[in-house]
Amino acid sequence: MPNDSSTRLPVIKIADNKDIATNDTLAIEEPLEIRLEHGKADQRRVQNISVTMRTPGNDAELALGFLFTEGIIVKPEGVNSVEHYFIACAENKENVIRVSLKDDIEPQLHNTERNFYTTSSCGVCGKASINSIKTVSTYNNNATESQVNSDLLYQLPSILQKHQKVFADTGGLHASALFTLDGELLLVREDVGRHNALDKLIGAALNKNLLPLDQYILLLSGRISFELVQKATMAGITIIAAVGAPSSLAVQLAEEFNITLVGFLRDQRFNIYTQPKRILLSKYEDSY
Amino acid sequence: MPNDSSTRLPVIKIADNKDIATNDTLAIEEPLEIRLEHGKADQRRVQNISVTMRTPGNDAELALGFLFTEGIIVKPEGVNSVEHYFIACAENKENVIRVSLKDDIEPQLHNTERNFYTTSSCGVCGKASINSIKTVSTYNNNATESQVNSDLLYQLPSILQKHQKVFADTGGLHASALFTLDGELLLVREDVGRHNALDKLIGAALNKNLLPLDQYILLLSGRISFELVQKATMAGITIIAAVGAPSSLAVQLAEEFNITLVGFLRDQRFNIYTQPKRILLSKYEDSY
Repeated sequence: MPNDSSTRLPVIKIADNKDIATNDTLAIEEPLEIRLEHGKADQRRVQNISVTMRTPGNDAELALGFLFTEGIIVKPEGVNSVEHYFIACAENKENVIRVSLKDDIEPQLHNTERNFYTTSSCGVCGKASINSIKTVSTYNNNATESQVNSDLLYQLPSILQKHQKVFADTGGLHASALFTLDGELLLVREDVGRHNALDKLIGAALNKNLLPLDQYILLLSGRISFELVQKATMAGITIIAAVGAPSSLAVQLAEEFNITLVGFLRDQRFNIYTQPKRILLSKYEDSY
Repeated sequence: MPNDSSTRLPVIKIADNKDIATNDTLAIEEPLEIRLEHGKADQRRVQNISVTMRTPGNDAELALGFLFTEGIIVKPEGVNSVEHYFIACAENKENVIRVSLKDDIEPQLHNTERNFYTTSSCGVCGKASINSIKTVSTYNNNATESQVNSDLLYQLPSILQKHQKVFADTGGLHASALFTLDGELLLVREDVGRHNALDKLIGAALNKNLLPLDQYILLLSGRISFELVQKATMAGITIIAAVGAPSSLAVQLAEEFNITLVGFLRDQRFNIYTQPKRILLSKYEDSY
């Protein structure tokens, strides 16, 4: 069904060398420009921060989540307003969003480059990327005692699938979901970009004052990259489970931040890459 | 098996609530910084162009393909050398690559922002993104007469799968592959980032002097985003087939550039989104 996140376009479907002309529902992809307004009353200015290709919908959450997980804004209380900004456009799309900060809040714009350029002599490498995140992350995961049962983990992907509405229509979207430790689905967000789906989710959690997210499970519909673990780290998440595979650097970052990382969660199986202490095997009712 | 693209890390595998401590092969993800050296002999300078999270391997192709598909360099003949640049690093990783241009070659650095910021009053929207690509693309696909048989298309994903070595080990990589119109696999490149896999492929094709790629089929292992069609456009590709779904803007860009876009290619089925004239249904031996 067409909505803000999907559209109908003509398609020729081929099956066993037979062709049927019909319509297909596709995930919408459009650029979103995030602008940041900040400064004292007499010196307000607007800066272009980023343009991302995203699926329309939950744009305010996306902007808020992006600015927070990139370390540009530290506290959501510093945000005055998040609004679409209309510019003359033949297509009349809502593709610019402006985040306005309170006048005593200074954005940390140097943080946007933290992943790669550090002041250390080490230069560009995974270790430098991990170290630079340590300097901006707010939460310390060492103290958290959250645990989850393996039988509960097995069920999460099918619960997510039932709620991935746009994916069911289009087959074209990534999802991020937040579950309670009892397996209750709290939030789910979808996007053509997996990083956008997670930014939307964290932006929504910020709006609900849920951070740090150390008493929840983050479920990812696909693979686990460094960038996704980085964003989870910024939100204080301690348990990440994904249907797909992690990368080497995703595992190293999770280990460094004491995050439990679970991959290949499907068909009553999963792999635990880091911090198995938070996973309880149902049979033994005991932790590792 | 460990190599430059994958590594072994400890993992606890859970299946039916039984746990086995073992090792797992993961795709490596590390930052790569692309630097560009250019200018007249007495005014040479080096600029940082981009940092991307990539799987090590084929870095020179990645750098070349990136600079070309972004429109920063127009002709590969203008490139003098592409070499890893070693900087003091405790981990001794090859994470910086320097592309050196001949001294009479001017890089088109303004093109890096072409996707989003145009001089038109339209601002940020999909249509502006498409229009801006028109101003930098070198190839015109209108004249090409390439065609492919549906029975041949069905076979491509399984041929690719047999050659996706790192994916088979890790489950964590995207692939881009180039096939001849007879179904011969010519090139395949893998990466944790799908855009990197395509940049590597196009960089390899540039090194082999194959461009424009209007007599080949590009096969993508996953979904089709705007960015991937943009890169294919820059290389003169006229047939894109993918195992996954396209986005709305990917379809619009393909239509605009007269590219045949095929999605959901699996299980003896596929969808044709644009330009069906290049697909021959085997049964009828006739085009649409």
